[in-house]
Amino acid sequence: MTVSQESPTGAANSNATKGNEKLDSMTFVLFGATGDLAKRKIFPTLYNLFLDNKLPDPFAVIALGRKNFSSQAFRLHVLESLKIFSRRFPENTDSTETFLQMIHYHSLNATDNQGYLKLVDYIKHLETVLRIPENRLFYLSMAPEFIDTVTSNIKKSGLDSINGWKRLVIEKPFGFDLSSAQNLNNKLGNAFDEAEIYRIDHYLGKSMVQNLEVLKFANPMFQDIWNKENISNVQITASETVGVEERADYYDQAGAIRDMFQNHMLQILMMTAMQQPKKLNSKEIRKEKLKVMEALQPLQKENICSSIIRGQYEAGAINGIPVKGYREEPGVESLSKNDTFIAAKVLINHPAWYGVPFYIRTGKRMKEKSTRIVIEFKKKLSIVDAKDSDKTIPNLLTIEVNKEGISLQLNIKNPETNKIEPASFSFSANNGNTPAEYELLLYDVFRGNSTFFAHWKEVELAWKWVQPALEAFEKSDCPLHTYPAGSLGPVAADQLLKHDGFKWW
Amino acid sequence: MTVSQESPTGAANSNATKGNEKLDSMTFVLFGATGDLAKRKIFPTLYNLFLDNKLPDPFAVIALGRKNFSSQAFRLHVLESLKIFSRRFPENTDSTETFLQMIHYHSLNATDNQGYLKLVDYIKHLETVLRIPENRLFYLSMAPEFIDTVTSNIKKSGLDSINGWKRLVIEKPFGFDLSSAQNLNNKLGNAFDEAEIYRIDHYLGKSMVQNLEVLKFANPMFQDIWNKENISNVQITASETVGVEERADYYDQAGAIRDMFQNHMLQILMMTAMQQPKKLNSKEIRKEKLKVMEALQPLQKENICSSIIRGQYEAGAINGIPVKGYREEPGVESLSKNDTFIAAKVLINHPAWYGVPFYIRTGKRMKEKSTRIVIEFKKKLSIVDAKDSDKTIPNLLTIEVNKEGISLQLNIKNPETNKIEPASFSFSANNGNTPAEYELLLYDVFRGNSTFFAHWKEVELAWKWVQPALEAFEKSDCPLHTYPAGSLGPVAADQLLKHDGFKWW
Repeated sequence: MTVSQESPTGAANSNATKGNEKLDSMTFVLFGATGDLAKRKIFPTLYNLFLDNKLPDPFAVIALGRKNFSSQAFRLHVLESLKIFSRRFPENTDSTETFLQMIHYHSLNATDNQGYLKLVDYIKHLETVLRIPENRLFYLSMAPEFIDTVTSNIKKSGLDSINGWKRLVIEKPFGFDLSSAQNLNNKLGNAFDEAEIYRIDHYLGKSMVQNLEVLKFANPMFQDIWNKENISNVQITASETVGVEERADYYDQAGAIRDMFQNHMLQILMMTAMQQPKKLNSKEIRKEKLKVMEALQPLQKENICSSIIRGQYEAGAINGIPVKGYREEPGVESLSKNDTFIAAKVLINHPAWYGVPFYIRTGKRMKEKSTRIVIEFKKKLSIVDAKDSDKTIPNLLTIEVNKEGISLQLNIKNPETNKIEPASFSFSANNGNTPAEYELLLYDVFRGNSTFFAHWKEVELAWKWVQPALEAFEKSDCPLHTYPAGSLGPVAADQLLKHDGFKWW
Repeated sequence: MTVSQESPTGAANSNATKGNEKLDSMTFVLFGATGDLAKRKIFPTLYNLFLDNKLPDPFAVIALGRKNFSSQAFRLHVLESLKIFSRRFPENTDSTETFLQMIHYHSLNATDNQGYLKLVDYIKHLETVLRIPENRLFYLSMAPEFIDTVTSNIKKSGLDSINGWKRLVIEKPFGFDLSSAQNLNNKLGNAFDEAEIYRIDHYLGKSMVQNLEVLKFANPMFQDIWNKENISNVQITASETVGVEERADYYDQAGAIRDMFQNHMLQILMMTAMQQPKKLNSKEIRKEKLKVMEALQPLQKENICSSIIRGQYEAGAINGIPVKGYREEPGVESLSKNDTFIAAKVLINHPAWYGVPFYIRTGKRMKEKSTRIVIEFKKKLSIVDAKDSDKTIPNLLTIEVNKEGISLQLNIKNPETNKIEPASFSFSANNGNTPAEYELLLYDVFRGNSTFFAHWKEVELAWKWVQPALEAFEKSDCPLHTYPAGSLGPVAADQLLKHDGFKWW
């Protein structure tokens, strides 16, 4: 257990406050260092943390890949990717050089047992030379089929037999359904304790998702009204304008329900619905998140198809540019019954939320790119509504996750027309200088703070909840609705809310 | 009683909604038509209402003054003042000419009984020619000493013996103390019913003050928290940067307590503290406002000087420009003990407000020009406050009356620093096209809606409340604090709040 390493400051400070925290020296062992994620995200993230003095010192990255590179040659690759993908790239080449010198390339075939023994020697050598204690962070930036091999080799080779701590960072997908996820987790459990595992759900790295707890628990104005007495419904939307892109192989099997819904959407649901924890630390926050998952009303056979709407995009146009239908995309089966859109109505059998529907919606090739949480407050009988021409609208709290803004819709009298109109009270946290998701998350891994990572129990319950839907979809028990690319999704998704007297905001 | 003329739509629509209301035809009898207020406010207001199709039709203005003018000559004067003082002056001279033709100048010496009889003939003539029914609106834009004379002459001459309705509009000041105000009101009562009297308090014409009822009663988010359980204190500030200007004769007698506090500040207090009325109409709103005034904890002899802070400005600088002290101002007595600043702590003995102090502050030659209402919400014990470096600040709702903006201060985690910081959610109603206070108010007079005018009972209770302070000031029982021009007022005004653990926002 690494609970003792958790920052005592709690989740509200899961990253830096004034002055950065003293971090344990460590070696960052990156599996898949020549891959796409490493190039686009991991190296740029480490570089930005370096620029912000948020890396441990001393610190070494062991970049692992099958190909042969000298460290010097690999650093040039990294330098190129920083130029393209880093959110900042200062002119000062000295400091960039200092950063690059932390990276050490080492060739490893992930399936070759012998290679791991050589890796042990290499790490020990580096640790000695650089005076780094035996704290080892293993980052698996690899296809899921390698996870088992790599982690069992970490154990077998003794890479994890150390005096310091070890941590494992893994990316999605975590399983393909309930049993495969359980299977994978069992295997991980042979080499790592749950407390050592950091499952990245990058939606939890979004600053506005992290802000939910502050918004709810640090503002007396909201503390008392974040409940069924005052909230009529909650709407969580993640829409993309892109299609399947180059991921058809994976996506045509996974669908929106696995790619987005089971993980990101349910994580946002937990963050939005969780009640105030006893303390703002990982343990207590995860306890509260789990209570939400445990209270989710399970899907019943007879209502699966009315609670979850599946959709698939047809040809259409986005911003006036014609785009193909999903089935015409390269790599997609011509009769694919895969979902590119999911909308669901979720109820939470928790005293705080009885009767408050949470509507969740995610899709590709939608009208706009947006991740948004809308809290719709109940309309109370208002004396202002006495006459027809002056109806008030509901109060709305909208959290724009990607645009990093929060707005509150209230009723105000427009002095010019003297009519009651909705007015938006808005706040933008986006000053163009916000750390990226991976910066927030990796810094938390360095600090040993797991608040904003998916706990196995959350992942398991999420799979349990969606499992009946996966099976119904597999058997084509539920209709696959279509929607034109560039639209707001299938009509059935609107009817889901209309049926309850609501509409998507 | 003219209650039946009140718009059934209620105060929330006390001005126009879509499509303007059908207004009774009337004659607008303006006493003091050659004066400053007529030039700067009344004619420009009528002109702007005309441009917005918010004048009755047919409509006539009888402009009364002592001097001799032909109507044609007077209209040229009006035209000049429109060019200078109207917020809009479109190029189309045809429509301006149409407006000017509604104005008819008539010479009247306000103290000459015979003149009123001639005026009766003149009005009747106009009403016949223009086919205007006998609805007469008397607007007294005159020094207070004339009010009695004019209203009794209106009665004696039979100007008010009509088939239609009559209304009286009067400006501040309404009395100099409790007994003079009662005296004046008794005299008005001989000629007009209370329901016919529109006492202008132009702060009630400010759109943000009018918005208070919508904000409070049309937003479920606020409905439940506008009370002692959730509000720690309320702060109402009206600060000016100007000094006594050309009004020393009046001001050196009246002081800030009569000029601002007894009327404008207590009216804002009523609007802020009033509970939800049964209906949004004048009658019910005034009932609720009155409940606030009736519940004001009276000043006790022993606490007058600690509840009300008097101040007078000394020489100082505003925006770097040196300005004189009050006693050096032309027309001010060299040893004047007059107040140019008042701060008060007011308690309301109403179940909704037990223990919630309302702090009121107004002054001349202050640091900034601002009229502002700040609602400070209670800080509840927050788990976020567990450690020192992460204290939350109170939630604040700030209504900027003059800037026509509303903002909400909440606690948010800054994604860049990861610290909890105050964030301002703001809304601006100022689109540069807002009707001026007098436009909102005069249109309401035309409609016979008296919601945003001071009722006699409110005025009387306000005088009753300040009377002990007036007497204490008169006897110099309370210290007269000084403050440098350009400051935030005397130190004692800060201590008033500090004593309770608060500060001015």
